[in-house]
Amino acid sequence: MSRIADTPEPPYYAVIFSSLQGNDLDDYAETAARMEELAAAQPGYLGHESAREDLGITISYWKDLESIKRWKAQAEHREAQRAGRDKWYANYRVRIALVERDYGKPEGPTG
Amino acid sequence: MSRIADTPEPPYYAVIFSSLQGNDLDDYAETAARMEELAAAQPGYLGHESAREDLGITISYWKDLESIKRWKAQAEHREAQRAGRDKWYANYRVRIALVERDYGKPEGPTG
Repeated sequence: MSRIADTPEPPYYAVIFSSLQGNDLDDYAETAARMEELAAAQPGYLGHESAREDLGITISYWKDLESIKRWKAQAEHREAQRAGRDKWYANYRVRIALVERDYGKPEGPTG
Repeated sequence: MSRIADTPEPPYYAVIFSSLQGNDLDDYAETAARMEELAAAQPGYLGHESAREDLGITISYWKDLESIKRWKAQAEHREAQRAGRDKWYANYRVRIALVERDYGKPEGPTG
């Protein structure tokens, strides 16, 4: 994804997922694409940004903690989280953060 | 940088910088490296994560809003911000977020 997420006025939440992949990436790309699609269909989803070099950073934006909790508990997503823990990621960290303020390039487009 | 930042127990702050580069990247790499070095020497700095494909995401972690404010106002950093606005970035967004909770791979190293 190569867009800056077009999020609304704060406050809203960010889930920051930082990860280092292992050697077994079987099914990874398909599952990642499917999870993006599923997340975007969840209530409270506000947007998504992602980049990877060695370190991967994926940020999803959400309306509130309740939306994040529901998405974390979603059945197909739980399976993907399990595969991430057991197979794809050598290490990862998830940070749940309340976006209090944002600003951008003065003359830039927002999307 | 290819490490997951070894941040302390929340709460702490994240500054999420999402950007799309333009065509003029004159001095960009040197300045980015210098800013990483300078940021790491600021009071309240807790760590840093970065990745770029088309979209670049750089997250710096800070002890509190006061540390973030001081870093934003640092003279050499202000010059870099100006060059970013005027020259390097076609678009960017900065999000200031309070990390309320984090967790990682159960058996993984923290760093």
